[in-house]
Amino acid sequence: MRTFDFRSDTVTQPTPNMRKAMFEAVVGDDVYRDDPTVNELESKCAALLGKEAALFVPSGTFGNQLAILTHTKRGDEVILGDACHILRYEVGAAAVIAGVQLRSAPTEKGCFYPGHLEKLIRGDDIHFPETGLICIENAHSGGNAVPLEHMAAVYKIAGDNGIPVHLDGARLFNAALALGVEAKAIAAYADSIMFCLSKGLCAPIGSMLVGNRSFIERARKNRKMMGGGLRQVGILAAAGRIAIEEMIPALADDHLMANRLAAGLEKIPKIEVQQAQRDINFVFCKIALPMPLEAFTEALSAKGLIVTGTPDGHFRFVANHDTPEEGVDLLIDTLKTLLS
Amino acid sequence: MRTFDFRSDTVTQPTPNMRKAMFEAVVGDDVYRDDPTVNELESKCAALLGKEAALFVPSGTFGNQLAILTHTKRGDEVILGDACHILRYEVGAAAVIAGVQLRSAPTEKGCFYPGHLEKLIRGDDIHFPETGLICIENAHSGGNAVPLEHMAAVYKIAGDNGIPVHLDGARLFNAALALGVEAKAIAAYADSIMFCLSKGLCAPIGSMLVGNRSFIERARKNRKMMGGGLRQVGILAAAGRIAIEEMIPALADDHLMANRLAAGLEKIPKIEVQQAQRDINFVFCKIALPMPLEAFTEALSAKGLIVTGTPDGHFRFVANHDTPEEGVDLLIDTLKTLLS
Amino acid sequence: MRTFDFRSDTVTQPTPNMRKAMFEAVVGDDVYRDDPTVNELESKCAALLGKEAALFVPSGTFGNQLAILTHTKRGDEVILGDACHILRYEVGAAAVIAGVQLRSAPTEKGCFYPGHLEKLIRGDDIHFPETGLICIENAHSGGNAVPLEHMAAVYKIAGDNGIPVHLDGARLFNAALALGVEAKAIAAYADSIMFCLSKGLCAPIGSMLVGNRSFIERARKNRKMMGGGLRQVGILAAAGRIAIEEMIPALADDHLMANRLAAGLEKIPKIEVQQAQRDINFVFCKIALPMPLEAFTEALSAKGLIVTGTPDGHFRFVANHDTPEEGVDLLIDTLKTLLS
Amino acid sequence: MRTFDFRSDTVTQPTPNMRKAMFEAVVGDDVYRDDPTVNELESKCAALLGKEAALFVPSGTFGNQLAILTHTKRGDEVILGDACHILRYEVGAAAVIAGVQLRSAPTEKGCFYPGHLEKLIRGDDIHFPETGLICIENAHSGGNAVPLEHMAAVYKIAGDNGIPVHLDGARLFNAALALGVEAKAIAAYADSIMFCLSKGLCAPIGSMLVGNRSFIERARKNRKMMGGGLRQVGILAAAGRIAIEEMIPALADDHLMANRLAAGLEKIPKIEVQQAQRDINFVFCKIALPMPLEAFTEALSAKGLIVTGTPDGHFRFVANHDTPEEGVDLLIDTLKTLLS
Repeated sequence: MRTFDFRSDTVTQPTPNMRKAMFEAVVGDDVYRDDPTVNELESKCAALLGKEAALFVPSGTFGNQLAILTHTKRGDEVILGDACHILRYEVGAAAVIAGVQLRSAPTEKGCFYPGHLEKLIRGDDIHFPETGLICIENAHSGGNAVPLEHMAAVYKIAGDNGIPVHLDGARLFNAALALGVEAKAIAAYADSIMFCLSKGLCAPIGSMLVGNRSFIERARKNRKMMGGGLRQVGILAAAGRIAIEEMIPALADDHLMANRLAAGLEKIPKIEVQQAQRDINFVFCKIALPMPLEAFTEALSAKGLIVTGTPDGHFRFVANHDTPEEGVDLLIDTLKTLLS
Repeated sequence: MRTFDFRSDTVTQPTPNMRKAMFEAVVGDDVYRDDPTVNELESKCAALLGKEAALFVPSGTFGNQLAILTHTKRGDEVILGDACHILRYEVGAAAVIAGVQLRSAPTEKGCFYPGHLEKLIRGDDIHFPETGLICIENAHSGGNAVPLEHMAAVYKIAGDNGIPVHLDGARLFNAALALGVEAKAIAAYADSIMFCLSKGLCAPIGSMLVGNRSFIERARKNRKMMGGGLRQVGILAAAGRIAIEEMIPALADDHLMANRLAAGLEKIPKIEVQQAQRDINFVFCKIALPMPLEAFTEALSAKGLIVTGTPDGHFRFVANHDTPEEGVDLLIDTLKTLLS
Repeated sequence: MRTFDFRSDTVTQPTPNMRKAMFEAVVGDDVYRDDPTVNELESKCAALLGKEAALFVPSGTFGNQLAILTHTKRGDEVILGDACHILRYEVGAAAVIAGVQLRSAPTEKGCFYPGHLEKLIRGDDIHFPETGLICIENAHSGGNAVPLEHMAAVYKIAGDNGIPVHLDGARLFNAALALGVEAKAIAAYADSIMFCLSKGLCAPIGSMLVGNRSFIERARKNRKMMGGGLRQVGILAAAGRIAIEEMIPALADDHLMANRLAAGLEKIPKIEVQQAQRDINFVFCKIALPMPLEAFTEALSAKGLIVTGTPDGHFRFVANHDTPEEGVDLLIDTLKTLLS
Repeated sequence: MRTFDFRSDTVTQPTPNMRKAMFEAVVGDDVYRDDPTVNELESKCAALLGKEAALFVPSGTFGNQLAILTHTKRGDEVILGDACHILRYEVGAAAVIAGVQLRSAPTEKGCFYPGHLEKLIRGDDIHFPETGLICIENAHSGGNAVPLEHMAAVYKIAGDNGIPVHLDGARLFNAALALGVEAKAIAAYADSIMFCLSKGLCAPIGSMLVGNRSFIERARKNRKMMGGGLRQVGILAAAGRIAIEEMIPALADDHLMANRLAAGLEKIPKIEVQQAQRDINFVFCKIALPMPLEAFTEALSAKGLIVTGTPDGHFRFVANHDTPEEGVDLLIDTLKTLLS
């Protein structure tokens, strides 16, 4: 039985072209900076986002934490949204590795509330840490693309206060697609950007940290300290190149499939689709479960549909390269049956 | 000219009895645990709060950070209110020293919103830090005493999840006074308590960390690591004993003076007293400044009145042992004149 | 012109079988533990070293630092040799990530001096950190294999004091080869072992951390915190499997080539080979440079020979899978010519 | 029975003049920088050591750790002697608070071996932390005063490499006395100096951190973060002033008493005095114990003599302001009796 995995776009398989590219990759020892394939990918990614330099990192969490470590000094405060990945899903790393305090602000669709950010920036007082960094997430993991206007406003406030901005762009290209702009246009409002080659772009492993040359050079050293100095990393960079060249356009299909799924689920009475969180390839919904969660997900699993949810019926379905129309329709139909 | 300092109760002078007690104190080397005066104070403070043990620490910030360090392991998450002292005024120390992530929640008068705390406690997921501690502040530095019912509710939720509770009781005895209970009744809902001998209690230096015996033994070692292992600390403990024995009852005067001040300010049209923040010796108010802040505070200073405020007219006046009726009335009258 | 790279064994290219295995690898999302190829590799590596469990990590530094983080609590002291990789070449990571103090001891060929280790273990004193871990490196990066007797002695002392032992086995299989034992026999004297799939074993990326089940489960979570939770990591695990199955035996060739090189260099009057550091695939030597270092290495480079050294003539030549007899002989001959 | 405590000079009682000074001290809130007595002491101490500024800190460990925190950035390496207090007796704090790696070197009488320090300073390599600080201890806790020539040599090497030097001068004035120079002459070879007002100088609590203005300003903020921002600290500063004014000259008596003790012990056959460690008020010796340690120290204790030692007979006797000739002679005589 073929399975369709809606848990995340992290589950995507490397494409055949990626496998071929990895097989053929010319590689060297990247700690000596001898790997031509990663060097090329880094140049390409810097150019793609309109920045000077880029660095391959093993994961999105690695890239975010490396950015925080490199921008700040220990004891700084980092302002970010209270629903963002760095605060919620990175195992508390910023306190351990960078030794910084996270200062979270409520957000609406990934945006700070007007006038709030300014108030969180620390002035000069012996009781205060310095505000060392502002982080923003776009696309936000709540399913929204943060508009360019908000990005610009945050970047302006940060700049006026001499504070750098890091963009957690794990799904940067989904955001760009949703906003109808180039990724570069979003990246223009950040000093550093992390985006993932894995997830929707299907590379098996890897993310990129992008910024100006001096930042990336310092990040390169910090990456070594964090254990992310790899050797023949061109193997992964080769897949990353395919991700960049071939898979960014393919994200449009994921968004279409998410739309198709959302439209289908909308028609099912016991499902409430969160339309306010529908900018990218995520479909959040609340399902009036007719049975315990475990039985419910097992019933879906029996049809080859892999999902996760909470006992009170909150689900996030993620369209990805490996969930074609056939899978989407099967999910809709199966849910329809289970809930009727 | 006699001056009256309304900036904080931290400015209080040691009382004559404290000076006498310090002069006469029998002291020894506390790193060897040979100082009888601090040993006695520690016993007394433990008993006062109904706990097994206590430890002298150099400051409130020291005591809070020591508690966080001792309760948690690196990488844990600590839940606390987003207006609390530990988050706002302790220079980001928890990330540096304990290596923990602060997870802040909005509060109302120092209380978490119903149902919110439970949601912040982490479950078992590879993306999550563990929730290692919940901190509560009572009296809250926003001017409120947190009711026993709320303390009990937080302690219950924490206990049900196996999470310790630390109480930042820098002004614990002000809270007890406001709530009309013994401090011990508040401390019953916390695993560790830090309270200050300085501030309203007038000791020149020092705070106490109180908890069970094993916690305090570990804190003693961590205190040494943090540089807080002092030698003939009985000098300060002698003042601390006076603070405990003589100054707790005297806090009632501070509250009366704050009430007198608030009542007086209420009658001044250009001053808005924040009555919702009026549980202890703090008077928060908004003043329609008739001149720039600096000129305004200088005009007060010319009368011997020391205050701090913000350019947009937010002031916190703190009644303390060294602001008698005469000072309070002078402040009221001077403001009346300046604002008419 | 073909080049031969003697800088390190980290420069080894993935073998054709590795490229094929990566091309064909069945992969899944390892954060969900759905990657069969990495799961199989982890089982295989655990069995290979006679331990319960294993974990794929991106690099040797990552694995060592993850082990330190997982064994210790912040503030512990870690005893290790003063010439070891963790102290010298891991960018100070242990203080940043784990928050532990390194306590280094002089070593001879990777071995502690008799009676010294015991003295470094901390007793119970309020001034002392706890000794949380002892690290040993085998093969030692100074070129020696640490004898089983020494491993056993260290493990005994550690065990008697309730302290775990971590083995930095970046070149564990070189050590085993040199000692004429199975790697498992060395691993028996450690609670955790990191070994590299890259380096002499030729995998492009990756190392393994091996230990008992509970340690590895905690390490898995810490790995996520450090940004080492990868997705379709089976791509790399597939190469790792070939490293384990095919390349361990091939290390014997590297040692033979190193011996051949050492024997050839011995005959050159201006070269002094450090015979005391000749247990594995490293050849340390002192060359009486007839010209500045840069000119010297460029002269070698012109022949396709890549080496690094210090201005005063200290060189480490490393035999590896990509330095066949032809390359070794070319190095000997070229040096002979340059130095005559 | 009068007791004489030879365990350390940390046990010294505040002098009558100190008690009087504390009683009369004019104090204010030092967090607001309103305490005239501490301000005066800080000026005085800066001048005493020929530096721009000084800061009161609660303890020697606090001052050393604050200096390390302020000089370095996280991940730096700090070079120091392997017998020094910071490495051995400060509970591993530098890794926890500053997040730095200690790199220890063997020393002889507190001095690095010729040519060794230079080798430990890190160059530019992606595997290396930066050398952020060199620490030296004078008087060294092994009982020696480090000669000015060595101080100068270390300072020169550090300066040539752009690395600051911190001097742990817990017993700086003992060193100055032993060397026959002013403390200022020693301090000239350090960028920051911590010295203790307690210990031989008899203040009950407190140490000073001294350096240039910008360093001390940053240290002031870091002191707040570490919980060392105290309030009416003039109480302690008043005793500190007496320590500086009256007790520095009195150290000569301690040295005389230590000499008297050493001379007396020398004549006892079963005692071997370590003459090589005899620069200051410490007398290290090896005693052939005629009974178990506990019985031995109890026998001394019965005569009012308080000492500590190790089961194999190593003792450090410390002469201090509270061990007059009478006490010294009693110790000599009692040991003579016990060992005959």
